[in-house]
Amino acid sequence: MKHLLAIDELGADGIRTLLDLSDHMAEINRRPVPKVPALRGKTVVTLFFEDSTRTRLSFETAAKRLSADTMTFSVGTSSVNKGESLRDTIETVAAMGVDAFVVRHKSTGVPWQIAGWTEASVINAGDGWHEHPTQALLDCYTIRTSLNRVDGFDGLHIAIVGDIKHSRVARSNIAAFAALGARVTVVAPPTLLPPSLDGWPVDVVHHIDDVIDKVDVLYMLRMQRERMHEALLPSLREYTAGFGLTAARAGRLQPHALVMHPGPMNRGVEMAIDPSELPGSVITKQVTNGVSVRMAVLFHLLGSGSGLVGEP
Amino acid sequence: MKHLLAIDELGADGIRTLLDLSDHMAEINRRPVPKVPALRGKTVVTLFFEDSTRTRLSFETAAKRLSADTMTFSVGTSSVNKGESLRDTIETVAAMGVDAFVVRHKSTGVPWQIAGWTEASVINAGDGWHEHPTQALLDCYTIRTSLNRVDGFDGLHIAIVGDIKHSRVARSNIAAFAALGARVTVVAPPTLLPPSLDGWPVDVVHHIDDVIDKVDVLYMLRMQRERMHEALLPSLREYTAGFGLTAARAGRLQPHALVMHPGPMNRGVEMAIDPSELPGSVITKQVTNGVSVRMAVLFHLLGSGSGLVGEP
Amino acid sequence: MKHLLAIDELGADGIRTLLDLSDHMAEINRRPVPKVPALRGKTVVTLFFEDSTRTRLSFETAAKRLSADTMTFSVGTSSVNKGESLRDTIETVAAMGVDAFVVRHKSTGVPWQIAGWTEASVINAGDGWHEHPTQALLDCYTIRTSLNRVDGFDGLHIAIVGDIKHSRVARSNIAAFAALGARVTVVAPPTLLPPSLDGWPVDVVHHIDDVIDKVDVLYMLRMQRERMHEALLPSLREYTAGFGLTAARAGRLQPHALVMHPGPMNRGVEMAIDPSELPGSVITKQVTNGVSVRMAVLFHLLGSGSGLVGEP
Repeated sequence: MKHLLAIDELGADGIRTLLDLSDHMAEINRRPVPKVPALRGKTVVTLFFEDSTRTRLSFETAAKRLSADTMTFSVGTSSVNKGESLRDTIETVAAMGVDAFVVRHKSTGVPWQIAGWTEASVINAGDGWHEHPTQALLDCYTIRTSLNRVDGFDGLHIAIVGDIKHSRVARSNIAAFAALGARVTVVAPPTLLPPSLDGWPVDVVHHIDDVIDKVDVLYMLRMQRERMHEALLPSLREYTAGFGLTAARAGRLQPHALVMHPGPMNRGVEMAIDPSELPGSVITKQVTNGVSVRMAVLFHLLGSGSGLVGEP
Repeated sequence: MKHLLAIDELGADGIRTLLDLSDHMAEINRRPVPKVPALRGKTVVTLFFEDSTRTRLSFETAAKRLSADTMTFSVGTSSVNKGESLRDTIETVAAMGVDAFVVRHKSTGVPWQIAGWTEASVINAGDGWHEHPTQALLDCYTIRTSLNRVDGFDGLHIAIVGDIKHSRVARSNIAAFAALGARVTVVAPPTLLPPSLDGWPVDVVHHIDDVIDKVDVLYMLRMQRERMHEALLPSLREYTAGFGLTAARAGRLQPHALVMHPGPMNRGVEMAIDPSELPGSVITKQVTNGVSVRMAVLFHLLGSGSGLVGEP
Repeated sequence: MKHLLAIDELGADGIRTLLDLSDHMAEINRRPVPKVPALRGKTVVTLFFEDSTRTRLSFETAAKRLSADTMTFSVGTSSVNKGESLRDTIETVAAMGVDAFVVRHKSTGVPWQIAGWTEASVINAGDGWHEHPTQALLDCYTIRTSLNRVDGFDGLHIAIVGDIKHSRVARSNIAAFAALGARVTVVAPPTLLPPSLDGWPVDVVHHIDDVIDKVDVLYMLRMQRERMHEALLPSLREYTAGFGLTAARAGRLQPHALVMHPGPMNRGVEMAIDPSELPGSVITKQVTNGVSVRMAVLFHLLGSGSGLVGEP
């Protein structure tokens, strides 16, 4: 495996390999000195054309714990502003000796383009509405460890609630959850669904109350306020009425059900209850697991099979 | 000790402990390779809601010399801009495995709030007009080493000159100097003093010439030009006339007296003489000592008692 | 040698010393773990008053491979914005224990000023139209290794094409190429030449076709679009007609001739052919060599003669 671009390219076996490796990384992260020399001398460059402090910090933390050097390519101050093409910029930075690019871009497909221009590994950290594979992996890892489902998700029912249409998190998670055997239901108003769901391995319902008491995992998506201006939503209040997690609805969840969110949350909109009052919330665990899963991805792409033991 | 939020929480004994430890750090900083493995595997995040390159670089240098990993949380590009609450942001970053947050914020009390939201240690690097405890510690360390006052500041007379009202440096330093036994005089026009000084362990005078020839330490505060627009000052020229350090006044200082400034200086305003012409200036020493003192604070909060010896 | 400010201060022997050392660094960069402990405990601060991601990343990569700590002094968020003088800023940052400043500034001479204010080493990473010595060194290293000219450039003919007047790359490269014995021809319209070339060790021609089939190295400068607005150019199309590298012209190059460019390229302007179609293009090699050459410079200024062997 050279790149991590999309969940579909991994398949169930690829996902399982990375989740097994994440277990090893989580063990490292519980040590007093959570650091190993595995990627010493490797250089990881974060290349974020869209802001995302949380994802960037998570990858940086993962890289540092493996002893890689990290550099931030700040698009705002780069030659991209002098009219240099993205390709020339990538080829130039790569020529300095980069081992992996972690890329986020507002346009679908940019990580694939970049992968075609460089010998370095490329990790898709979110491209447009398309894919965000490390988010899906950390979500799978969180479900697997929280519900003790090491062998797969057969029989699990997962609902993904919210703006499916514009969500790369939804697309990657649907692919990953389905690959591991889960039944996936998407919950959204018609305006926030893609024009066609042909070929998507999902059921569709249009109200959260249709599934709230049946699911093992309730995955809430972030509601982006700008969708309202696009006339896709009547109002945030109506959105909450139909799709928000309120205290009343939380009471209808099965006792073992997990509540997940990729962050950042909109409190009072999709999260109309404080998650600290939800016994099933694993939202903080998702963040913590993100570091372990990204360590697994970086090590799988760049590591040499050793270096996970010993002092940093 | 879990956090460093305010000088009062330290007390005289806490201050002395950190100054003693700073001696050890200063010795490390004089080595050819000024680096120890003390905090290997620890992660220190700087979280500056107000710009301050000098303070941020000083903490970063301190953390790197102890072999900690450092990350900068850049508020301008973070999810705080997407409407995420500060609490959610802190909890998210903390969940990645942060050991200490170094926080600067324009509002009083924010570091205490943050300390309530996370298991990580919090160091107050300046909150509003309130406290800036590491500045006070580095100033105490500079006086202690420059005047050879290891046992305390009994009998020392220290004047703090300038905008007392809006200065966190003044508040932290008054508390620290007094705790160590010094006599403190504040020198300011009434408009730049707080409404009440009840309970402050200080004398007040309204003209620098009243104390210039009597003090052991002359501590000049930065005069922020924006105070003039608030009608707190008639003009910068009049401020200099009443409160600036001019060559004539410098000639009246006692031979052993120190001149200090937290930086950045306003040359021609409060510093109306080039500090390089002042034999008693320890302004550069303050900056150098800042690294040692911040190493002491980080090690005291995060270290395990060993790791100060050996190769990095 | 304390600083690297200008090629003239190096002389031919100084250049050769650094190119020899670059060979050693290039060997390190070919290792599986391209990292040595040579500068452990040293602190390198990049201080860029003009944006340049590529040069900054190249220096950062070089410093990290020698195990130095690096910090970025971000001018936009610094006390320089509070009215602090550049000198006070430099003295403050230096007092924290900086070993080298890497400086880029839009005004000629600023790196010399900074060198006068600090005990740290200063590396000129570009000052105005004046000098960019590490660019010249990496260009010399690229020619030396590509044409196997370890003993010097005697008999080589190098043409530098484009905006000579406003180019620090041209000035540093002319000095370096001439010092190593090359014959240098500059190719530019009169409006893009300095008012006088007295004392410059160059020939001048006003059309690229006058030299294209005679040179061993064709060095293309970036054409800055803003020159057009200053009425120094009739149009970009006319510029390309007289000075651009087109496919037709590339066909007239000698088979062994190198094509070089400091980047970022303006495709369709000075580079009117895709460089990947030029067998003699060493543009990517220039970038790769930049890291080795900057490692050589940093080690020469800060290293102690050992530390190039052993594990990082």
